Amino acid sequence: MATITGMEVLDVRFPTSRVLDGSDAMNPDPDYSAAYVVLHTDGGPDGYALAFTIGRGNDVQAAAIKALEHHVVGKPVPEDASTLAALSAELIGDSQFRWLGPEKGVAQMAIGAVVNAAWDLAARRADRPLWKFLAEMTPEELVSLVDFRYLSDAITEQEALDILRAAEPGRAERTKKLEENGYQAYSTAPGWLGYSDEKLVRLAKQAVSDGFSMIKLKVGGNLDDDIRRLKLARETVGPKIRIAVDANQRWDVTPAIEWMTALAPFDPYWIEEPTSPDDVLGHAAIAKALDPIKVATGEHVQNRVVFKQMLQAGSMSVLQLDAARVGGVNENVAILLLAAKFGVPVCPHAGGVGLCEMVRHLSMFDFVAVSGTDVDRSIEWVDNLHEHFADPAVVRDGRYLAPSVPGFSTRMHDATLRRFLFPNGPEWTENES
Amino acid sequence: MATITGMEVLDVRFPTSRVLDGSDAMNPDPDYSAAYVVLHTDGGPDGYALAFTIGRGNDVQAAAIKALEHHVVGKPVPEDASTLAALSAELIGDSQFRWLGPEKGVAQMAIGAVVNAAWDLAARRADRPLWKFLAEMTPEELVSLVDFRYLSDAITEQEALDILRAAEPGRAERTKKLEENGYQAYSTAPGWLGYSDEKLVRLAKQAVSDGFSMIKLKVGGNLDDDIRRLKLARETVGPKIRIAVDANQRWDVTPAIEWMTALAPFDPYWIEEPTSPDDVLGHAAIAKALDPIKVATGEHVQNRVVFKQMLQAGSMSVLQLDAARVGGVNENVAILLLAAKFGVPVCPHAGGVGLCEMVRHLSMFDFVAVSGTDVDRSIEWVDNLHEHFADPAVVRDGRYLAPSVPGFSTRMHDATLRRFLFPNGPEWTENES
Repeated sequence: MATITGMEVLDVRFPTSRVLDGSDAMNPDPDYSAAYVVLHTDGGPDGYALAFTIGRGNDVQAAAIKALEHHVVGKPVPEDASTLAALSAELIGDSQFRWLGPEKGVAQMAIGAVVNAAWDLAARRADRPLWKFLAEMTPEELVSLVDFRYLSDAITEQEALDILRAAEPGRAERTKKLEENGYQAYSTAPGWLGYSDEKLVRLAKQAVSDGFSMIKLKVGGNLDDDIRRLKLARETVGPKIRIAVDANQRWDVTPAIEWMTALAPFDPYWIEEPTSPDDVLGHAAIAKALDPIKVATGEHVQNRVVFKQMLQAGSMSVLQLDAARVGGVNENVAILLLAAKFGVPVCPHAGGVGLCEMVRHLSMFDFVAVSGTDVDRSIEWVDNLHEHFADPAVVRDGRYLAPSVPGFSTRMHDATLRRFLFPNGPEWTENES
Repeated sequence: MATITGMEVLDVRFPTSRVLDGSDAMNPDPDYSAAYVVLHTDGGPDGYALAFTIGRGNDVQAAAIKALEHHVVGKPVPEDASTLAALSAELIGDSQFRWLGPEKGVAQMAIGAVVNAAWDLAARRADRPLWKFLAEMTPEELVSLVDFRYLSDAITEQEALDILRAAEPGRAERTKKLEENGYQAYSTAPGWLGYSDEKLVRLAKQAVSDGFSMIKLKVGGNLDDDIRRLKLARETVGPKIRIAVDANQRWDVTPAIEWMTALAPFDPYWIEEPTSPDDVLGHAAIAKALDPIKVATGEHVQNRVVFKQMLQAGSMSVLQLDAARVGGVNENVAILLLAAKFGVPVCPHAGGVGLCEMVRHLSMFDFVAVSGTDVDRSIEWVDNLHEHFADPAVVRDGRYLAPSVPGFSTRMHDATLRRFLFPNGPEWTENES
């Protein structure tokens, strides 16, 4: 039996703020970053994962991951549902560390990174891409992965089992479908706030000709600008392409409703993050007022307990799970089960560093073994930083191809790690201002 | 004008797990700890504050505080409402760091520690204990301290001003009252889960003879034990002393209701933290089912946005603010205003390291300048670790005395810092297992 012999954590940052990729109403100058973790073993492949941040504080995130070292180093490599469930439970259950959350923020993202690295390791050893490794587990194994604490008023273990059993018969057929056709994507490329109108139009046209059926625009900076940009985008893509808009938490409840009412003539499909990601009741009020415009949120939703409430309260009509915000694969299985129970489509948050690489596995697993459907579902696509990954996400004709390489696609190239290491990698020492 | 010349951050831990002080259903073996921050200046006193944790991860908390150094070092010492508001806004508004929360967990506690150190500094320089420094500000100054983002659906700036103006006339009289009689306390001493029945009874008797009119018992380990312990406590203190119980997030919604229904015959005054601190809707369901038993929560409520919702939804009938969990004094002013708006009494969480020292300032400020009342309000009292503070909290005849020393009472003795520094202080090197 192989053992985890060491944990390496690296602070890796990309200077994305230099070109305003990723600029929005709340995040004017992000440096997309990864607190990157490697679990070394004494036999077989290592495991890789990351927590995504946008610059300052990535060192704190790395320190939080490192603080969990004693839970994994010297322990057997987890290889199946039972050992992966136990690891997640041990990390969530560290009562002293728990005080730092509980189950939220830096602490939860650290747990998520360690859990995801263990999943990457297990899937590599099983010689399966993560989505298949998960989708081949029995309903009982999948349910055993989930911490149902605080969930039982919304979903019980039995209900989760029922959902998974109902999806069992079509697994093989849907797996084949994914391998043949991939999974629908949408494009955020045209919509960053820092882009000119000309660039917006050019990239929107490009997105349509590339086969995307939805694009997304950042909003919330200036209302007149947003009206002009949304009008331009709608004229460019025509009435049949969906346009989502994203306010990145910019508004209070009433301003969100007023602003979106002003944008409604251009038929936005969803408004993403209209207000604080903590505001279950605020999102519910916005959703009620703006119907039929959908409300989407999730990239900053801290854990399954907040997702649960947002589903209970009707706060979201699109659930945007994030691979690196919550407690890793285990908590995301819980979130997928909650979404299936409430019949809310999951359209994962991606972009950043490695998020496209990771979430495609979760959506594909969901399609095969949980919700069993891809209707009104798509995965965000931002064509940025993929070149740094050993198994990069590939989108063709507006669809994510099904990954076939074993693991969670979380490994970055060694050359990237050397170059972008903060603060001493050459990318940072050679470009100091 | 004086300048902040440096920030020192220390990882200080007390080995409280050796004696089971502080043991409860979720925290069996806490080592009460402080990520302690000092803001050094080039003239006049320095400023002190801490984030409270319970052991592992205190180094991560310290790293998060240190990551904010560039926001304060080299800057002028904040001395008034305007500069203290600006500092809080700058810290909350750091868009890259914000990703680590936003406004929650390790990142928010770090902001809170820096903000509180700045308040300690400003109050020391004004030669005022913090509660008076705050209570002498105008309503306009107090409102300027608050970030109303995400609050406007529950309280507007104008409503906050109205609350503060209504309390203005009685300020002098209530200040005098505090200086003469202090502020009501309640005792958690008898109730830790690790204590024997004999110790519980002895400490409950002691609490009554010491003048406390409420005690608190930890529950949630084993129902039969809880019934026996609560029965014993009720027999010991009689029908007139209030008994609060505290489950430390142990339950889901239905188990919380069932468990507390079984304890109801012993007339518990409130049930504290029945479930996840993130579960606004869960707390509301529990509060509705258990009425007239009150629901109290707050020590793990991450920020004003969650407090807002809990007040909107009727999730809490007692608000337990915490001095070191949220974004410092500024966010606690927001929380006090929310509580006043909704007419919910504030009974702060204390104990831990330095929490008694800090929260008495906030309750006394509330009494003088915000709610204007102390009816059904009291501050938790745990007689532990006060000897490490330069201006320790003092409770006499069941009441906190009003602090008179300038500052936020957050300074620890140098000898304590040396002894309990982790991992290299003698308390840790001499007692290694």
